[in-house]
Amino acid sequence: MSHRTLPTLYPIQYQDLVVRALIEDLGRGGDLTSDATVPSDLVGTARLVARERGIASGTEVAMAVFHTLDQRVVRVSSADDGTAVRAGSELLCVDGPVRSILAAERTALNFLGRLCGIATLTGRFVAAVAGHGADIVCTRKTTPGLRTLEKYAVRCGGGANHRFGLDDAVLIKDNHLVAAGGVAAAVGGARGVAGHTVKVELEVDTLEQLDEALALGVDAVLLDNMSLEELRRAVEMVAGRAVTEASGGVTLDNVAEIAATGVDLISVGALTHSARSLDVSLELELG
Amino acid sequence: MSHRTLPTLYPIQYQDLVVRALIEDLGRGGDLTSDATVPSDLVGTARLVARERGIASGTEVAMAVFHTLDQRVVRVSSADDGTAVRAGSELLCVDGPVRSILAAERTALNFLGRLCGIATLTGRFVAAVAGHGADIVCTRKTTPGLRTLEKYAVRCGGGANHRFGLDDAVLIKDNHLVAAGGVAAAVGGARGVAGHTVKVELEVDTLEQLDEALALGVDAVLLDNMSLEELRRAVEMVAGRAVTEASGGVTLDNVAEIAATGVDLISVGALTHSARSLDVSLELELG
Amino acid sequence: MSHRTLPTLYPIQYQDLVVRALIEDLGRGGDLTSDATVPSDLVGTARLVARERGIASGTEVAMAVFHTLDQRVVRVSSADDGTAVRAGSELLCVDGPVRSILAAERTALNFLGRLCGIATLTGRFVAAVAGHGADIVCTRKTTPGLRTLEKYAVRCGGGANHRFGLDDAVLIKDNHLVAAGGVAAAVGGARGVAGHTVKVELEVDTLEQLDEALALGVDAVLLDNMSLEELRRAVEMVAGRAVTEASGGVTLDNVAEIAATGVDLISVGALTHSARSLDVSLELELG
Amino acid sequence: MSHRTLPTLYPIQYQDLVVRALIEDLGRGGDLTSDATVPSDLVGTARLVARERGIASGTEVAMAVFHTLDQRVVRVSSADDGTAVRAGSELLCVDGPVRSILAAERTALNFLGRLCGIATLTGRFVAAVAGHGADIVCTRKTTPGLRTLEKYAVRCGGGANHRFGLDDAVLIKDNHLVAAGGVAAAVGGARGVAGHTVKVELEVDTLEQLDEALALGVDAVLLDNMSLEELRRAVEMVAGRAVTEASGGVTLDNVAEIAATGVDLISVGALTHSARSLDVSLELELG
Amino acid sequence: MSHRTLPTLYPIQYQDLVVRALIEDLGRGGDLTSDATVPSDLVGTARLVARERGIASGTEVAMAVFHTLDQRVVRVSSADDGTAVRAGSELLCVDGPVRSILAAERTALNFLGRLCGIATLTGRFVAAVAGHGADIVCTRKTTPGLRTLEKYAVRCGGGANHRFGLDDAVLIKDNHLVAAGGVAAAVGGARGVAGHTVKVELEVDTLEQLDEALALGVDAVLLDNMSLEELRRAVEMVAGRAVTEASGGVTLDNVAEIAATGVDLISVGALTHSARSLDVSLELELG
Amino acid sequence: MSHRTLPTLYPIQYQDLVVRALIEDLGRGGDLTSDATVPSDLVGTARLVARERGIASGTEVAMAVFHTLDQRVVRVSSADDGTAVRAGSELLCVDGPVRSILAAERTALNFLGRLCGIATLTGRFVAAVAGHGADIVCTRKTTPGLRTLEKYAVRCGGGANHRFGLDDAVLIKDNHLVAAGGVAAAVGGARGVAGHTVKVELEVDTLEQLDEALALGVDAVLLDNMSLEELRRAVEMVAGRAVTEASGGVTLDNVAEIAATGVDLISVGALTHSARSLDVSLELELG
Repeated sequence: MSHRTLPTLYPIQYQDLVVRALIEDLGRGGDLTSDATVPSDLVGTARLVARERGIASGTEVAMAVFHTLDQRVVRVSSADDGTAVRAGSELLCVDGPVRSILAAERTALNFLGRLCGIATLTGRFVAAVAGHGADIVCTRKTTPGLRTLEKYAVRCGGGANHRFGLDDAVLIKDNHLVAAGGVAAAVGGARGVAGHTVKVELEVDTLEQLDEALALGVDAVLLDNMSLEELRRAVEMVAGRAVTEASGGVTLDNVAEIAATGVDLISVGALTHSARSLDVSLELELG
Repeated sequence: MSHRTLPTLYPIQYQDLVVRALIEDLGRGGDLTSDATVPSDLVGTARLVARERGIASGTEVAMAVFHTLDQRVVRVSSADDGTAVRAGSELLCVDGPVRSILAAERTALNFLGRLCGIATLTGRFVAAVAGHGADIVCTRKTTPGLRTLEKYAVRCGGGANHRFGLDDAVLIKDNHLVAAGGVAAAVGGARGVAGHTVKVELEVDTLEQLDEALALGVDAVLLDNMSLEELRRAVEMVAGRAVTEASGGVTLDNVAEIAATGVDLISVGALTHSARSLDVSLELELG
Repeated sequence: MSHRTLPTLYPIQYQDLVVRALIEDLGRGGDLTSDATVPSDLVGTARLVARERGIASGTEVAMAVFHTLDQRVVRVSSADDGTAVRAGSELLCVDGPVRSILAAERTALNFLGRLCGIATLTGRFVAAVAGHGADIVCTRKTTPGLRTLEKYAVRCGGGANHRFGLDDAVLIKDNHLVAAGGVAAAVGGARGVAGHTVKVELEVDTLEQLDEALALGVDAVLLDNMSLEELRRAVEMVAGRAVTEASGGVTLDNVAEIAATGVDLISVGALTHSARSLDVSLELELG
Repeated sequence: MSHRTLPTLYPIQYQDLVVRALIEDLGRGGDLTSDATVPSDLVGTARLVARERGIASGTEVAMAVFHTLDQRVVRVSSADDGTAVRAGSELLCVDGPVRSILAAERTALNFLGRLCGIATLTGRFVAAVAGHGADIVCTRKTTPGLRTLEKYAVRCGGGANHRFGLDDAVLIKDNHLVAAGGVAAAVGGARGVAGHTVKVELEVDTLEQLDEALALGVDAVLLDNMSLEELRRAVEMVAGRAVTEASGGVTLDNVAEIAATGVDLISVGALTHSARSLDVSLELELG
Repeated sequence: MSHRTLPTLYPIQYQDLVVRALIEDLGRGGDLTSDATVPSDLVGTARLVARERGIASGTEVAMAVFHTLDQRVVRVSSADDGTAVRAGSELLCVDGPVRSILAAERTALNFLGRLCGIATLTGRFVAAVAGHGADIVCTRKTTPGLRTLEKYAVRCGGGANHRFGLDDAVLIKDNHLVAAGGVAAAVGGARGVAGHTVKVELEVDTLEQLDEALALGVDAVLLDNMSLEELRRAVEMVAGRAVTEASGGVTLDNVAEIAATGVDLISVGALTHSARSLDVSLELELG
Repeated sequence: MSHRTLPTLYPIQYQDLVVRALIEDLGRGGDLTSDATVPSDLVGTARLVARERGIASGTEVAMAVFHTLDQRVVRVSSADDGTAVRAGSELLCVDGPVRSILAAERTALNFLGRLCGIATLTGRFVAAVAGHGADIVCTRKTTPGLRTLEKYAVRCGGGANHRFGLDDAVLIKDNHLVAAGGVAAAVGGARGVAGHTVKVELEVDTLEQLDEALALGVDAVLLDNMSLEELRRAVEMVAGRAVTEASGGVTLDNVAEIAATGVDLISVGALTHSARSLDVSLELELG
């Protein structure tokens, strides 16, 4: 089990999404074009190929799209999620009735392009901080309904996962502090409410707040929109007593500098809310 | 009814998605942080504000997120979808229990940021072709499960919609041609299968194919990855007998040149598969 | 690909309906009678037989009913959807545990009888207009939840499909004209709103309206409740510039006369809203 | 509480069906035509009117269709389910935004036409046996997914309900008898399996079987496809010891004769599997 | 077919529940612990073992839990539902990837422990009344969503099923009597409303009410909270003219005395609302 | 915000469950008895009353049951969840149509009885350890589908929540240790896989394992089935370096002794898998 171990994705975690996506595309009338142009007994082999370099993610889901539409479409081979691919690399190869392959094509590509896109962008951030100790982590800024898959794609790209939702960790932000009436009240409230398996993280905007947070013994501090100099000072102040997470305005251009401050984690919302899809296409061979 | 009329979005078209997104974030345990820090009787006003310029889209959906979680959260005001917003502009303002507002915040922002992001990117393409006659159209490269909303966001940005799925138009692509054994067979098949309300569009890669397509009388031709010169020649050849659609490799840098060739439509997959989210944040005022 | 090519029905298009129908019949307590009377290890062969002449439709769906309830029930043979059957003809033959076969019987017959009934009635209309150029088309007057299957059954009977819903074509009717303020405004609005893959059809009640419609260049005209003489005149006026559809009060008695007017299409709501079920029964042989 | 008391239909019993039917019609793109032709602020009044005589059923469901699509569409008035209507009678009158009324029109009419159709056909059978003591009862030959509504419509027409599914009564038919090895074994099995609230009915094809059934003390006997003479003899033999149900080949032409034999019940599959829809249309008045 | 015949449980009756239960446990992130500690290629055998004596119930459901999560987990052997098990007895043995077995473990045990618990408690009541003629029956006091499974478990324990819901029998209780205005009105109403397959049971609190009920000819009487002496008198009065059911305050201590009064049925809400789970654990063997 | 703060339950967290439970009880035919006996215009007031002492939980859910069935049933008053009730105390009082109140009665009571039952049993354990520092925590041994509600009920009873599922904390048990090949490998794997918000807890069966666990720095240790003496020694060894949780064979008889050993938490599976329902009944007053 290394740091790069991928989470297990069980089919029941995405099967409902796959069915809904297929039905969304088939509509009420099905694939008019393939019905009109493809003989029902024509079989072939389809290769889903990356047209640019990136990181594989979602090959199981894409396979499930084909197989869910027509059980006669079977896997020939596939790349391992989490591995690097070059332009021209095959991500998935399937075999079966051409009509069904073409009917499922767009849905399979939509999943695959998006997940590879997230993994690839994550991989760029991870590469940019190589040599520093910082992990790249995602946020809850995910596409509605796709959180499990998108968080998985971040892992494929070498990133780590922040909390999955509102219920698996406490993360006290500025609005919570105002509502609670200050850091001490907020952290005290969290201790009273959260179970023993729940960690408490606090967003701090200034070093004074950080001081207060450390005195209260939180598990992690989110250092929001701090300058590099502030981040360095914060890391020194924390001195290992809490996990340090830098956040806000992180780009591929500045992430290495941020990592050099010694923070443990750098969270990047763009991994999931603004990754562009990897360019993936389907190449068909008949017979 | 002008060209810019937005489609009506009825709540039943997105309500199920809103519920699933909220539950995805609440998980099994709810919003631990807000429960721990926000008094249950605290009320306030939240403004969802664009932090960069763009085009509004999805304000009704964001409102539905708040209202679905807690019916006591009500709308104060909202921007009209399809209108331009500047950095600092308010997209939506709601009023109600702070605990519920904060529990719904991330889900509302995830919808709003994504839809505004698509509308904004579409708006850039539309602006870039202003003065030419070409419409910017989206594709089926949408996020699984979000097609209705993403196609709506394209309309908010001033773009037009290509087909919504496999069943509302015939679009014959290269793989279909190979399977059918040529253009004539494919178009003939489509005529035999499709009802009288269904249009037939054919992807052509060369001017020779275009010639053949025109002879067969298709409704539209998708001119795939043609050079500007080829596009100009194609438009001349078509001479109004079919709708012309340019596709492939379209960017903000080259879209004006493509429009200048006289094509009717320019389709851009990136509108939905690679738009980055608009930066939107929630500003809370207590009391 | 001939005119008679049937659409592909993928299982995900009806599987949810099959499950709900079975559960609707099993209720909370299951099949009390079969549990009480049929030994659990008894196997047999069941033939689903037409008791009157008609056209087969829905054999795959009926097979799915049995197989969904118990995977040990397998197909022995089945008629091809779209083919004629006589009284006594076998539509489907399955093999498996008798208890499961009897528990699924009524649900399978309910699907099969209804779909064969629609195909059969459609086939009668199609036969009645043979020799004329007119196609028989269905409407949106379908059973709630069964549109895909019922439109498929119409195709099995040799009919063609009108639009599948409100979003795949524009069909401007009298109420729309009143709301829009006239034909020109309505058609203009449609052009502004609909994408390039969407056809526009206009209902016309008089030849004056038809004239106006043709001037506006609509794709199709719905000639509503016109006399045979009006239909003939309308067809002449249109002269191939639009698809002509006769509608209103069509019966097996008058459909040939209507077809003889030269219209392209004759739409018949009764195909789906008033077809009686084909009489189909299950014959069981033990062992 | 008289014999004609209608069952209470709670909205949760049909709400899911209403939503699915509306989405089936709206598809992914919504009502293109109404968006294109109806100003968003136009309001009006719509009357759903029977165009032939019949019996009202499903007015609540039709109202729910409008209200589910747009809560601003409200009821003005409606006929009572179970009452007779003439050609021109109003079944339901609603008020609200015209765009929403027209978008919901077809779905509301599909429910209403079907349910009124079933009630009306049932009413004809009930009228035909007036003066005899027999009740008209429906079967499980209902449309998949609509059993609750269709059984309700039978009640609106004055009919009674047979069992709702496989689990609320035992009904031993010929195939069960063969599987069980005879009447005694089958009835004995039923007694052993069924709870004390479950009645046992047995299909008998001959008077000999009837004799055996009576000796075993079943609650009801289904006299299948018997001649009028056999039915009379059967009623005499039963002499009140069981409920008698005639079944098979019942039509409006022969039902009175069957009733005259003295049977308690006459079951008619056609009530639900072959009723034609009542002709209902929507009349709109603006402003 | 003996009295002990178990109902057939078809997978579609519990499959949805199994999927929801698994997803409830996997959440959005899956089984972190097994992903972290169990090599993905490790296989093993798991035995689900009773740690106390009881009656088996739910082995098929538990098997479905494993198989639904990972189709490679297959059954090795299982106990028959309805049979007695001792401490140490194996209920189910499966084989497959250890990671999937451990991820499904808790969900499988939650189903199995609960259903065996109900069967076991039922079995105790059944054993306590052995030698008397009374059946032990359950009520509608079941866990929301689990009625089918819990009623099945009662049957595994040797009990019988009362009605499954509000629609398969009439059971007139005190509040209904007050609302109807007395026994005669209530029973008359029931006769008018209920179909011929529906039995009518009446709750009686006094022997006077019983007298009235018998005169009206109800199918069963629920003797609520009567003393042993009253029960004996009631049984005598009924003299076989109706089924007699004792109810209220039944415990393992007093159930034999109640049975000795000669009642036909004794209903026990605790069977489903207060059974404790049977202690079942999973024993794993690698390789 | 005190230790006793209850989590917020939003309706969308249980609404789907409420609908399914009501439909489970209404079946296909609705509430035959109330339809037969209760005039449709009769209104009344219903009090849901505890018949024994306990702790309130689930009053909002019970209210939602009535209101979901019929929006005219409204709340008059209700007890606060988490407060003690005596025999005769009112938990909820509603007002509305009697027919709807009686149709919803059993479903509302089934939720309320179960949740109050869990809260009450939890309260007994909490009371038993009063004066010691130990918290009573629940497990994942919950009813399939009801985890959110049952964990909430534990909180109402004064208990704390252990993890909600497999994805919000790592809990390494004996089978994981065997699969991983020892404590060090398992904990190392967990560190590599889990994000920074995830705590790691390790089950230890012996003090030697505890020693090893402490050296590895886990967040919590589950002391499984240890003697009181071992627990005391374990608490000393841990000396505040980890949270200590006692587990296994905990009863109301021995829980105080266990708490006296100084452990931080005592987990009790029985809270959710074996709580008996609180006896709650509905008292109706007409008019």
